[in-house]
Amino acid sequence: MAINHDFETHIRQAAAILRSWGMTPANAEQTAKVLGWADLRGVESHGIAMLVEYNERRQTRPINMQAVPKIVRQTPVSALVDGDGGLGHVPASFAMALAVEKAKASGVGMVSVRNSGHFGALGCFTSMAAEADLIGIATTSVFGIRVPPTGGAAARFGTDPWSFAAPGDEGKPFLLDMATTTVASGKVRNKVVERQQMPPGWGFDKAGKPTLDPSEVMQGGFLSPLGGTPEGASHKGYGLAVMVNILSSCLSGSTLITDPMHSKQPKGLDVGHFFMAFDPGQFRDVADFRADVKQLCDDLRATPPVDLAKPVLVAGDPERAVMAEREKTGIPIGPGLLRRLHEIARENGAEWFFQHPSTNNTEQLRPIYLSVNPSIS
Amino acid sequence: MAINHDFETHIRQAAAILRSWGMTPANAEQTAKVLGWADLRGVESHGIAMLVEYNERRQTRPINMQAVPKIVRQTPVSALVDGDGGLGHVPASFAMALAVEKAKASGVGMVSVRNSGHFGALGCFTSMAAEADLIGIATTSVFGIRVPPTGGAAARFGTDPWSFAAPGDEGKPFLLDMATTTVASGKVRNKVVERQQMPPGWGFDKAGKPTLDPSEVMQGGFLSPLGGTPEGASHKGYGLAVMVNILSSCLSGSTLITDPMHSKQPKGLDVGHFFMAFDPGQFRDVADFRADVKQLCDDLRATPPVDLAKPVLVAGDPERAVMAEREKTGIPIGPGLLRRLHEIARENGAEWFFQHPSTNNTEQLRPIYLSVNPSIS
Repeated sequence: MAINHDFETHIRQAAAILRSWGMTPANAEQTAKVLGWADLRGVESHGIAMLVEYNERRQTRPINMQAVPKIVRQTPVSALVDGDGGLGHVPASFAMALAVEKAKASGVGMVSVRNSGHFGALGCFTSMAAEADLIGIATTSVFGIRVPPTGGAAARFGTDPWSFAAPGDEGKPFLLDMATTTVASGKVRNKVVERQQMPPGWGFDKAGKPTLDPSEVMQGGFLSPLGGTPEGASHKGYGLAVMVNILSSCLSGSTLITDPMHSKQPKGLDVGHFFMAFDPGQFRDVADFRADVKQLCDDLRATPPVDLAKPVLVAGDPERAVMAEREKTGIPIGPGLLRRLHEIARENGAEWFFQHPSTNNTEQLRPIYLSVNPSIS
Repeated sequence: MAINHDFETHIRQAAAILRSWGMTPANAEQTAKVLGWADLRGVESHGIAMLVEYNERRQTRPINMQAVPKIVRQTPVSALVDGDGGLGHVPASFAMALAVEKAKASGVGMVSVRNSGHFGALGCFTSMAAEADLIGIATTSVFGIRVPPTGGAAARFGTDPWSFAAPGDEGKPFLLDMATTTVASGKVRNKVVERQQMPPGWGFDKAGKPTLDPSEVMQGGFLSPLGGTPEGASHKGYGLAVMVNILSSCLSGSTLITDPMHSKQPKGLDVGHFFMAFDPGQFRDVADFRADVKQLCDDLRATPPVDLAKPVLVAGDPERAVMAEREKTGIPIGPGLLRRLHEIARENGAEWFFQHPSTNNTEQLRPIYLSVNPSIS
């Protein structure tokens, strides 16, 4: 059974583990906050469960836990930031804060980040722009490769996500955070576990042919770009993934995802990001802009639903509903993940703030931490 | 049988018809060039065939053929442009040229356009940025409404396209121009004509349920957002369409697509656009950036294909292949469209530069001009 902890405890625990890996207290705090942001909103694939992945990753790759992001060059509307070979949460937070600052001063700020790493949920950063009454756009390159281009029989992309945010109704920004794949690998894995076929368009076998068998995807096959198949317009998901790599890697000078040295550079996780914030007040009164965004979102929510039990939602709504619940009841952590985090804390001498995992728990533990986003695996 | 004309004649003919509607010679020339840009690249849904649609539209809507786009307000990095209630080709060309100019001077230019109209192919404008060694991004709102939000049983969106362009190999920019629907309505109509089922995910019946029957889509049903179904992640295509409307309509102050007054305002076609250009040289040496974009695109083209007869392509490649052919052989126009254009020219007293349509042509004429993008219909 999952055990709930409040948000503060959740962050304190993650920060303690990160400090035990040699991360500075300030960076550990910020990294833990970004992970907690995702868990609080139910995006558990990008929350504290990532510590299990990061712990494995740091055994095989030199990740700089003392990393301090640096501005390499800048103009009033742009900057290139070097992530100093660490995890991505701190440089990404720094970069979007810088983009917001430039947008407030000059109307727009665009920050390219190189030499960074996995940073949790992309929406955490675009939402910083929306909270500052700005429009936010962000992309990131990724570590793991699982997706072929349309018509291809070899993987060339990862999840390669986009995020967009815009302020509207107070506390209810439009917030889209989407991989350019049809689904994440965790969903395919769940179908294997449940011995179910996949819906059409989720993945390909190792020859690049569409398949409904999830085990073919997991055994040498591929995830599909959004659109699923050529007939379903997968060239659009593929095209969006190319643009993510142009913005994240080509612009920052990070190693191309198609380069044989991708994910094999001598230092760091070799990931690039792109962050942008801009002021709608350059074009209209911000209050009018926000009123229109609110109206658009409200009109969409008022669309007659196909299923009366499932009202139409707008991007950001599902996560806000989970957040409202978890702010009251805390953030649940399943027994498998709790035990794994406890092991990691013990192995590294980190303080333990969560409840102790039950030692005589004989129930079958669901390996939650295995269903993470492939962007890190 | 289709008749070919060279590019110059193609533009001269379109401009003559536009002048016969009262358009100024300069605006007619620019509008014809934008339409010809699409036809030269095989994007016939957005080329000279649109004149048939525009001719119908101007019967029912007051379109200002004398429109002169005006800058309403601007900063070194931004501008709001009013399209003056005309067609969109001239204000869109003006706006992207302004964005390019600002990007050259200040690193980035963002131009929001209101009170504009249909403007041909979106990629025509982002490619202006790529030709100037800049990255281009553009979106536009649309006139026609055919697409429900995910889970909805009423149409709230049109084709709502995005375009992205980036310079790489000389003359071979990355150029993505994509509707946020799975397919255009023309493809569904073709399935009706051919009495074939659609692939899964193309559309919905009038209750919003997925269907494989194209006639159900055409008779009160809907086109799907990219992703096709909720299981295929249509919330991503839907989310991208919302962001198009935020950038194109909320930012410019154009009537929201969900507003009952959408497409019913007393003047013009009531369409908003968003154009952006920015300089990769703010972050890296432009030559290094372009070399990386070229390398990425070349690596993708070198991906082992699923079908040896179909090599992997990059966005922009198919249109360049058509252009190379048509620069030699001219642009084909089918007999149905040729006859219809001839009628329009005669009715309005426009000069005729194309070959005369065969008067004793008894073959069944395929109504090419009906399969246009629904964004105008």
